[in-house]
Amino acid sequence: MKLLKTLTSLLMASTIASCAIADSVTPMPNEWITLGTMAGPIPNATHSQPANAMVVNGKTYLIDVGDGTAGQLAKAGLNIKNVDAVFISHLHFDHTGGLPAVLSLRWQTSTKNMLTVYGPPGTKQTVEGIFAYMTYGALGNYGVPGQKTELASNNVQVVEISDGDVVNLDGFKLSAIRNSHYSWPKDSEEWHKFQSLSFKFELADYTVVFTGDTGPSEAVAQLSENVDLLISEMMDVDYTVNLVKRMNPNMPTPAFEHMRQHLSKHHLVPADVGQLAAKAKVKKLVVTHMSPGLDLPADFQKYTSEVAKYYQGDITIANDLDRFILKR
Amino acid sequence: MKLLKTLTSLLMASTIASCAIADSVTPMPNEWITLGTMAGPIPNATHSQPANAMVVNGKTYLIDVGDGTAGQLAKAGLNIKNVDAVFISHLHFDHTGGLPAVLSLRWQTSTKNMLTVYGPPGTKQTVEGIFAYMTYGALGNYGVPGQKTELASNNVQVVEISDGDVVNLDGFKLSAIRNSHYSWPKDSEEWHKFQSLSFKFELADYTVVFTGDTGPSEAVAQLSENVDLLISEMMDVDYTVNLVKRMNPNMPTPAFEHMRQHLSKHHLVPADVGQLAAKAKVKKLVVTHMSPGLDLPADFQKYTSEVAKYYQGDITIANDLDRFILKR
Repeated sequence: MKLLKTLTSLLMASTIASCAIADSVTPMPNEWITLGTMAGPIPNATHSQPANAMVVNGKTYLIDVGDGTAGQLAKAGLNIKNVDAVFISHLHFDHTGGLPAVLSLRWQTSTKNMLTVYGPPGTKQTVEGIFAYMTYGALGNYGVPGQKTELASNNVQVVEISDGDVVNLDGFKLSAIRNSHYSWPKDSEEWHKFQSLSFKFELADYTVVFTGDTGPSEAVAQLSENVDLLISEMMDVDYTVNLVKRMNPNMPTPAFEHMRQHLSKHHLVPADVGQLAAKAKVKKLVVTHMSPGLDLPADFQKYTSEVAKYYQGDITIANDLDRFILKR
Repeated sequence: MKLLKTLTSLLMASTIASCAIADSVTPMPNEWITLGTMAGPIPNATHSQPANAMVVNGKTYLIDVGDGTAGQLAKAGLNIKNVDAVFISHLHFDHTGGLPAVLSLRWQTSTKNMLTVYGPPGTKQTVEGIFAYMTYGALGNYGVPGQKTELASNNVQVVEISDGDVVNLDGFKLSAIRNSHYSWPKDSEEWHKFQSLSFKFELADYTVVFTGDTGPSEAVAQLSENVDLLISEMMDVDYTVNLVKRMNPNMPTPAFEHMRQHLSKHHLVPADVGQLAAKAKVKKLVVTHMSPGLDLPADFQKYTSEVAKYYQGDITIANDLDRFILKR
């Protein structure tokens, strides 16, 4: 039944009516919004899983889409129907778990504009899985005899990107490079098949690098050189290893060292973040992807101090729904 | 690499350590928790999409799993690893959009216990789609050479249920009946293929009916007879139609009447909810599935009064994370 779908479409428009009115007076600024700032995969009571929104020239883009991204978008005052593209840094589920809801809720509200999902190799298969999840539900639709239904894949396309790829979009250029979140031997089958990417967004007069999940990486440092804003992951490896130690007093020391080495290789500790920002001479640093349990003001102060030992610029440890204007 | 997965498993345990300590002193009460109380499919800034948790004998069950259910579980102090079963009322995406995150985050944290998804015909195909979404990501795993990886479908099974089915679980009996959220002609192909279900949960000394999405339905009224707690959907059809009218002053009157008739058939207005609760003589009524935009205390008061015209028992219009002890 066309009417029900029209109805949800119309209601959707009314939900963001206030934003639309604001739009007609002053154009929306270009912004980065941290929708979810806690590292996954453990769901957290105070912070959402990794997700970000970027607004450029009034268009909305998602950068990683953890569980609950659709709801976080609404909290940020952004309309899910206006999302033009999604950029996925890597295929860990804490970074993609919210994508099925984003795609299926857009379908359910008869969203007409094309959404493009950009991501590393495997993104096509991943999104096709989401279409498979949607297929039966889409056939049943609103349960009205004679109602026409669209394919689950309607108005969605996927573009896989790899290390070194550049994509031109409306008002900005996207560059993707491989980071060190995975440690496959160079040129192995897995090295080609599974990539974790960092992104650079070059707007007309502003540049942003989003590290995604990464360990220390010369490529990420080069990508970040002189950017206006670096959005960097961070993990407190000491805290995490010590927590496990306290809970498992009988686990042998070499096992902990092994764990510590792996976490250090695939993530950035505060000193790594500070050194990256300093080396790349970034103008401003926003830290996200905090470890669960480390969300008190005192924790944020501690990490800011640790990063500031190396980087003397503007440092923010982000909370969910923090907004950063992309303007010098 | 086993260590990384062990680590997330251990961290997960620590996150709910306080609950575990509480458990050892007093057992957790049997509870119903409204995780998401706003009707979809439009994401809302203040209320999450349809989802509920039920705790019986210390085990956690999900009833519908809209976007963000994993995060809402954490806010309710419940561990995603402890979810034993999911009951899906129908396959509209606002009721299932959070399931891919629940399943994939459990996978990512090496959850060992079996999770069973119960749902109407089509649930198998839907969940197999989720496994397809997870397959590539699961192969890449944590990006550590030589690391063993589990299948996406590991520790998950699906049981499809239909009108009239009864399932015995640990400490309660589940009965499912077809409701009137869909209006397929009786015995048509679609009537068999697409079912929207209401559920009755019979605990040792307490009974709950969850209507799911439904229109007025004699079968739901019979299922609800004398239950201790009725969790009922509600939709303000007048408000919704008038909102569309205000926004589309030139739409012809018959079109609105058509829309109103369809919404009234597939959902319950406040008077329907009151009449259902009164007819079934339920001991307590909890109303959920409010329309977006209707979330002020004055709205809640208005709906309570409208329902109370027909039903003189205990009425609660639920908010996200409201808790109801399942005890007389």
